Amino acid sequence: MTKWVYLFTEGNASMRELLGGKGAGVAEMTRTGVPVPPGFTITTDCCNAYYENGKEFPEGMWAQALEALKVVEGQVGRRFGDPANPLLVSVRSGARESMPGMMDTVLNLGLNTQTLAGLATLTNNPRFAADAYRRFVQLFGKIVLGVDGEKFEHVMNETKGGVRQDTDLSTEELQVIAEEFKAIIRQDAGVEFPENPYEQLRMAIAAVFNSWMGRRAIDYRRVYRIPDSLGTGVNVQTMVFGNMGSDCATGVAFTRNPATGANELFGEYLVNAQGEDVVAGIRTPKPIALMQDEMPEVYAQFNGIAQMLENHYKDVQDVEFTIERGRLWMLQTRNGKRTGIAAVKIAVDLVNEGLIDRHTALTRVPPDMLNQYLFPIVDPDAALSAGRLAAGLAAGPGAASGVIVLNPDEAAALAERGVNVILVRTETAPEDFHGMVAAQAILTARGGLTSHAAVVARQMGKCCVCGCGDLQIDYKAGTVTVVARGEVVKVLKAGDAITVDGHAGLVYDGEVPTRESEVLQVVRGTLSPDDSELYRYFTTFLSWSDDVRRLGVRANADTPTDARVARSFGAAGIGLCRTEHMFFEGDRIDAVREMIVADSLEARRAALAKIEPLQQGDFEQIFTVMDGLPVTIRTLDPPLHEFLPHGDAEITALATKLGIAADRLHAKVDSLREANPMLGFRGCRLGIEYPEITEMQARAIFRAAANCQSRGIKVIPEIMIPLVGDVSELRKQEEIVRRVAESVMSETGQPIKYLVGTMIELPRAALTANRIAEEAEFFSFGTNDLTQTTFGMSRDDAGRFLPKYVEQKLLKDDPFEVLDQDGVGQLIQMGVERGRATRPGLKTGICGEHGGEPNSVKFCHRAGLDYVSCSPYRVVIARLAAAQAVLEARH
Amino acid sequence: MTKWVYLFTEGNASMRELLGGKGAGVAEMTRTGVPVPPGFTITTDCCNAYYENGKEFPEGMWAQALEALKVVEGQVGRRFGDPANPLLVSVRSGARESMPGMMDTVLNLGLNTQTLAGLATLTNNPRFAADAYRRFVQLFGKIVLGVDGEKFEHVMNETKGGVRQDTDLSTEELQVIAEEFKAIIRQDAGVEFPENPYEQLRMAIAAVFNSWMGRRAIDYRRVYRIPDSLGTGVNVQTMVFGNMGSDCATGVAFTRNPATGANELFGEYLVNAQGEDVVAGIRTPKPIALMQDEMPEVYAQFNGIAQMLENHYKDVQDVEFTIERGRLWMLQTRNGKRTGIAAVKIAVDLVNEGLIDRHTALTRVPPDMLNQYLFPIVDPDAALSAGRLAAGLAAGPGAASGVIVLNPDEAAALAERGVNVILVRTETAPEDFHGMVAAQAILTARGGLTSHAAVVARQMGKCCVCGCGDLQIDYKAGTVTVVARGEVVKVLKAGDAITVDGHAGLVYDGEVPTRESEVLQVVRGTLSPDDSELYRYFTTFLSWSDDVRRLGVRANADTPTDARVARSFGAAGIGLCRTEHMFFEGDRIDAVREMIVADSLEARRAALAKIEPLQQGDFEQIFTVMDGLPVTIRTLDPPLHEFLPHGDAEITALATKLGIAADRLHAKVDSLREANPMLGFRGCRLGIEYPEITEMQARAIFRAAANCQSRGIKVIPEIMIPLVGDVSELRKQEEIVRRVAESVMSETGQPIKYLVGTMIELPRAALTANRIAEEAEFFSFGTNDLTQTTFGMSRDDAGRFLPKYVEQKLLKDDPFEVLDQDGVGQLIQMGVERGRATRPGLKTGICGEHGGEPNSVKFCHRAGLDYVSCSPYRVVIARLAAAQAVLEARH
Repeated sequence: MTKWVYLFTEGNASMRELLGGKGAGVAEMTRTGVPVPPGFTITTDCCNAYYENGKEFPEGMWAQALEALKVVEGQVGRRFGDPANPLLVSVRSGARESMPGMMDTVLNLGLNTQTLAGLATLTNNPRFAADAYRRFVQLFGKIVLGVDGEKFEHVMNETKGGVRQDTDLSTEELQVIAEEFKAIIRQDAGVEFPENPYEQLRMAIAAVFNSWMGRRAIDYRRVYRIPDSLGTGVNVQTMVFGNMGSDCATGVAFTRNPATGANELFGEYLVNAQGEDVVAGIRTPKPIALMQDEMPEVYAQFNGIAQMLENHYKDVQDVEFTIERGRLWMLQTRNGKRTGIAAVKIAVDLVNEGLIDRHTALTRVPPDMLNQYLFPIVDPDAALSAGRLAAGLAAGPGAASGVIVLNPDEAAALAERGVNVILVRTETAPEDFHGMVAAQAILTARGGLTSHAAVVARQMGKCCVCGCGDLQIDYKAGTVTVVARGEVVKVLKAGDAITVDGHAGLVYDGEVPTRESEVLQVVRGTLSPDDSELYRYFTTFLSWSDDVRRLGVRANADTPTDARVARSFGAAGIGLCRTEHMFFEGDRIDAVREMIVADSLEARRAALAKIEPLQQGDFEQIFTVMDGLPVTIRTLDPPLHEFLPHGDAEITALATKLGIAADRLHAKVDSLREANPMLGFRGCRLGIEYPEITEMQARAIFRAAANCQSRGIKVIPEIMIPLVGDVSELRKQEEIVRRVAESVMSETGQPIKYLVGTMIELPRAALTANRIAEEAEFFSFGTNDLTQTTFGMSRDDAGRFLPKYVEQKLLKDDPFEVLDQDGVGQLIQMGVERGRATRPGLKTGICGEHGGEPNSVKFCHRAGLDYVSCSPYRVVIARLAAAQAVLEARH
Repeated sequence: MTKWVYLFTEGNASMRELLGGKGAGVAEMTRTGVPVPPGFTITTDCCNAYYENGKEFPEGMWAQALEALKVVEGQVGRRFGDPANPLLVSVRSGARESMPGMMDTVLNLGLNTQTLAGLATLTNNPRFAADAYRRFVQLFGKIVLGVDGEKFEHVMNETKGGVRQDTDLSTEELQVIAEEFKAIIRQDAGVEFPENPYEQLRMAIAAVFNSWMGRRAIDYRRVYRIPDSLGTGVNVQTMVFGNMGSDCATGVAFTRNPATGANELFGEYLVNAQGEDVVAGIRTPKPIALMQDEMPEVYAQFNGIAQMLENHYKDVQDVEFTIERGRLWMLQTRNGKRTGIAAVKIAVDLVNEGLIDRHTALTRVPPDMLNQYLFPIVDPDAALSAGRLAAGLAAGPGAASGVIVLNPDEAAALAERGVNVILVRTETAPEDFHGMVAAQAILTARGGLTSHAAVVARQMGKCCVCGCGDLQIDYKAGTVTVVARGEVVKVLKAGDAITVDGHAGLVYDGEVPTRESEVLQVVRGTLSPDDSELYRYFTTFLSWSDDVRRLGVRANADTPTDARVARSFGAAGIGLCRTEHMFFEGDRIDAVREMIVADSLEARRAALAKIEPLQQGDFEQIFTVMDGLPVTIRTLDPPLHEFLPHGDAEITALATKLGIAADRLHAKVDSLREANPMLGFRGCRLGIEYPEITEMQARAIFRAAANCQSRGIKVIPEIMIPLVGDVSELRKQEEIVRRVAESVMSETGQPIKYLVGTMIELPRAALTANRIAEEAEFFSFGTNDLTQTTFGMSRDDAGRFLPKYVEQKLLKDDPFEVLDQDGVGQLIQMGVERGRATRPGLKTGICGEHGGEPNSVKFCHRAGLDYVSCSPYRVVIARLAAAQAVLEARH
């Protein structure tokens, strides 16, 4: 006979597959001698057998359950269904991982009109008993019998008359309510509420099994590729009550401070209360430390158990407990959630305490959480009481307060006068760049995580919340209207103060206090590392990552400042330097525009001659900062119209500045307009049409390199041609680069070692990588564009439908945020394999936004790339993710 | 000792590899007893040896050449370099295939100051000799010594003083010119013009070899993947002269009429002239038939040789001949170029005459040429004397005259009054559709072969020339300005007559006569097949194709009319019915617009309810026409804003019509605007956001199917979901379709057999085809979009750079015209293989524009697709191409 039922005393932590996560956890606590309310688990195998058996319990199961129940009765000294001394139980689902759509907990099962009376007598508390019964009927009706929960709420609210709390309800009122609940159940579910406790138990167990094949659970498993055959367990556990009097209590605690990581018991408790009361916040709980005075013996026992559990699980535990009439019961223990700062400290401390090794420590911190070391955060206490205005996408890390400014010029002007500004736009464009630089934070109403605002903000390490759809921005009126569910909630004006939380994607009304990053203060030299414990933990932890990882980590950096930051965060080079990002600085844009509107080769060359020394200067600075490390420079990429103004007035003004007829300039701007600019005249297509642009850029690079070399700086330039779809394009551009290199080398007498390679950012480039590698000395996968073309989805427009896709689980993640391994990933693997088939040892990297996203970094490790390149502030995240990739591959 | 040199008498047609095409051809003629001026060929192997030998002739070659020359001297009775009786030769290159960049012919080689005198004496024609010498120096200087040809032209023009012809130059002037030429050579090439004929010959041979590794030749071979190792041959042949007197002549002829295919000798000749004179058109040549009277004996000989060559080569021959002092010399024979109509007639006739078999006949007609059977053509004679205005892309077949109309409404109005109009637009948009329907032809200034104008025109089988960059259209002024090389050539006004030749991509001034298609007259029932020889040849030929091909051919058809045409051309079903193409008909667009601007589900459903019966009616008609054949219907695909007006006035007018505030409609139109509509909110993304649209379309399809079935019509609907990137999208839409199908079947009691499948038009769909095939019952490759995304190139914008790419050979073909087998083709193969791995026997087809392009059709055959689907008028082209694919695969 198959064993379908395990007492908590029979299981242990290793039986997760068979007993589910919850069952295995409770069994493990029981096994280690922790006081746990007795109970038993019905196995996940039984769930499968239930379905194979036409949704009937398999042979022997019910008998085993009754037998286990008998044992539990003996352990507790109460009897199930006994009117005098009734055993009550909770019934809950427990799959291997917790899973949305699975059944919630049914509490107080075993109550009926008879046992209810017994409970009242036993506890000498009729109201307590009546409330317990009301709760049971409500939960059972909703969860097991599928009655709409709103109907129960409605009865509760009617009775309370809109002013009283649940706790104000009298025993009699609670009794009436329970009867009304039963009437609703009769009408809706068409069944009498079961009086027989065994019938109740049977139905609750079947309901757990049935929920395994519920629509939401199936959908969830389909999306996450979890096989249906795993099944769920069912946990039946003795109820204990913390609300039977002043010798009762309930509480939650962490074995270490989850905010700071400090090694101290941290939590809160409530005397004479149920667990739900702590969560609901009806009464204010007390700090756990006070328990030491109030219940010294139980506290000592609890503290000992907590430490034991931490040692046992070798990680911070988040525990729930109930004290019933002076007796401590542990209800749950699990690894505690913690802040990023706490996560690092705890991991390092646990290593120092000898509990875990360094490799284990590295797996304990989600890489993204390192952001909290680098950026300001909203003060957590202050946030609680602050007015939350709207939520959007957490697009750029940090937190900042400032006044609303809707116009980039004004933002720049105000910032110059020392005002902290938040640039608020419907969406941003390259011409807003100076305003974005000047702002403390950027807030947009439209655009996803890879919209212009988001990309630029992350690049600058600037706080940004984007796609905040509840904001309506009226530039003319100078207002930001906050709408919620179609209603205007608030109208803000330019000049009003707000606070933006880029870690959480939230916007607060007014100024909410924030805290500066200590790590950044050290990096900038304004704080000594000796004075910053945070910094020491941070660097220690990252140095362990570096010992483990294989993948190189570079940064995307366009300016000397970015390059400096990147290097201080441990970047091993620049993986993407976008030459055009420097085009907007100062007066340069004038020369760039002159170049674009030029009608002849001569005019274009004249304008290019103005840009060249500026570019050369930039490159010299970057090479200097990156002394000894490779710098990958991409030739001009964006569509030219991005550099031109589009308003009538701006065009006319520019025409005057350039000394050409306004009509002609209008015509030129029009002629550059494209139906689909993303798929238009850009990338290497520019350099093929205007070879003189590539020539100028190559000359600026090589002259800068020669100058730096003559100053003793080690320069390793890697010239990267964008948007190549066919090897012929790369060949054409490469010829120019090599010709210019030769000429600069002979002109300066400086030999320069350099590479020429390409972005792989079009499906065709990946598909024909074997041919492209005939020319390319390196590949850098441009996964932003590769994602756009592979999916046929523009990042600028996907905001219209992509969020819904993710919400409806049509896609697991936003592919612009997390690399799509199924589709785009195939192209990357193909590109690497085919490229290396032609050119063994071909250097490969990734320079899309994904280069700093942990799951994507791990994919890059598995795909055999040599490096990832990401924005400077994500370098540390990538370093950790790369280490975790190695550790995960060992399992 | 390797044999490097072959006399013409030693070779034959099978030695093409070794002797090159020309050498083998001349040898074959010699071998079959045709009088050919004697000569010899230096082998292609020798070319390779020349390079291996450091660009020196390999050992023995020169000696063999001299020996061969001796034999030729003997055959001709003249001696090379003999002042009294000089042998003159031509030297030309001859690779296996003729190849751009290879060396042109050097004529009259062997002339020097001494032999020149001998030639004058011998011919008794000093002017003839002086002119021959002048030509020789000029050609040798330019071709062998690399002097800029312009410089020689300049001298000629100076001497002629701008008024006289070459033929007006006196002997003395010609002598002076030759001396000046030599001076130019001395100065430019830094060498004396070689006096020694052997030196001349040696240099000319080396020049041929050197041209094999010239830049253009190398580029050409790189693009066409021709190995460098093939090498070129060199042909050295005795000169013969048709300009020595009235017993001399020169001419060209076809063994059958190349325009009609009639079996009659067709050509022209000139007495006392050189071949160049016939080509240059200085004198008007006489029809070849006249030669029968003028030179009866030579004519008889020539006629016999011509017939013999046709029989020998089993194809129409295009021959060149010269009569020198009454003696006939054949200079060249090659397969004759012919019109499509001639090609079919000749192929069928040759089969009937027993010269070739049917399979061979099928390989003799380029599939595209069948267009000439289906569309009007510009009368060839009239075209010669007509005024050509501009050239663009041959985007839609046929030819038409009419008056210029710039506005689609006006086009529709005028056409209703019986006026033939040509719709001339900068580019077209879906809202111009009614004007395009009304016009005889469409002419656009912008857009490539897959621009909206081109796609719609081909779909309708309508004459169209697009991308005519020399036209500047001013809608306000109502003018079409023709510009050539930056200068205004002509300003046409709306109402002026023009003629558009869609076969050639040309625009003529005024009305030029055109000829109607007989085949279409038969199809339409206005001409009896018995009265049309053309029709009989056409159908006979196509029936042979059908006997051979494996690939099914369907049509893309959106209307009953299109469907009818498609069926009459042999389409085996509809491979793509774009439901939205019917949205613009009549008042429907109002309901469509109402649906788009609807703010609530109810409003949207109300508008959809208006559209549904119209769609159902369309489908009933199409099912009726296609009785017994499958009809693939695609659900709504294009971005919604394509259905909305964009001008301020139009929006306001629509707002009034719909009874909503103009502001609100403006806002709606704005909100639907996208940065990259091609990558935006379209395809199945619409149906996922608005499931009620898919529901309505499915209901219209299935109710139409049920109605038709009840009338005894056999209906095979295949519902196709567009723009799927992940199987989850297809699953979501499929659920709706199947649910509606069930409901209609139970409502009507009609069981309906149907399929649900998807377009594979995104790289991700091809990459994840194994997953998508879990749901899809068929795949249809949408190669238009697949090309766009694979290349990251928008068809609407590629006009800016793609023509240059093709011109510079960065790409072999426009990938929107000819399927890119290297990139897009890989995705198709992947899609087929992976799809069939999941679902063996998965039906696969292609429904992009490429489905009617012969090379692409052949690729589809090789990739194992089940069918291609193309516009109705290209069905016959695809049928032939599919047959050729089978025949080519056998080789």
